Amino acid sequence: MSYYKHHVFFCLNQRDNGEASCMQHAAQEGFAHCKAQVKAAGLAGPGGVRVNKAGCLDRCAGGPVAVVYPEGVWYTYVDEHDIDEIVESHLKNGQPVERLLLPPNVGR
Amino acid sequence: MSYYKHHVFFCLNQRDNGEASCMQHAAQEGFAHCKAQVKAAGLAGPGGVRVNKAGCLDRCAGGPVAVVYPEGVWYTYVDEHDIDEIVESHLKNGQPVERLLLPPNVGR
Repeated sequence: MSYYKHHVFFCLNQRDNGEASCMQHAAQEGFAHCKAQVKAAGLAGPGGVRVNKAGCLDRCAGGPVAVVYPEGVWYTYVDEHDIDEIVESHLKNGQPVERLLLPPNVGR
Repeated sequence: MSYYKHHVFFCLNQRDNGEASCMQHAAQEGFAHCKAQVKAAGLAGPGGVRVNKAGCLDRCAGGPVAVVYPEGVWYTYVDEHDIDEIVESHLKNGQPVERLLLPPNVGR
C-alpha cells in the first residue's frame, strides 16, 4: 500500500528567460490553497493526502499543472475553485475531476 | 498508462532551524547524479523516466529520501553508488533495490 493514499505534486517552477512557467500562472496560490484545504478537511498525513512542492514537471504547455500519485492523474487548473473541486471530488472521494484533466499529449 | 513510466521525486528540503533535513545529507548531489545518469542511459522523457526536485516529503527521519511513482517505492540513499544501483536496477530494469527501501514506519 502507498505511504500516502494520494500524493499531490504542484509544479512551482519559475523561469526568468522568457519561456512560460507555472509560477507565472498562480501555481504558488494553487499549491497553498490545496495544502490548506486538505488540512482543513482532515485529510493530511500518512495514509491520507500529502500536498507537495515540486520543480518543473516538464509538461509546461498545459501549465499550471499538478499530478496525483500513485494513480498518475494529471491536472491543469485555473483558480481556487478548480482546486476545491480536486480536493472534494478526487482527494476526499476518490473521483478524478474529468474537466480538469491534462490532455495526454501535452508536453513541454 | 502513466505519462512517465517512473517519476522520481527527490526531497531537496533545507531547514535552517536546527531540525534535520535532506539537504544536509547530500540530497542535491543525489538528485543531480540521478538526473545525469538517467539522461546518460537514454531513459529520460515521456514514456520513460523523469527525475524531479521536490519539497519536503515529510519522511525526514529516513532522509535523504526519494520516492518513485506510480509504484510508490520509497528509498533512503547514502551516496552516488546507491543512486547508480537505483538507476540500473529499478529505473532501467524495473527491479526495486531492496536494501535501500525506506522502512514503512519511518515518518517525520
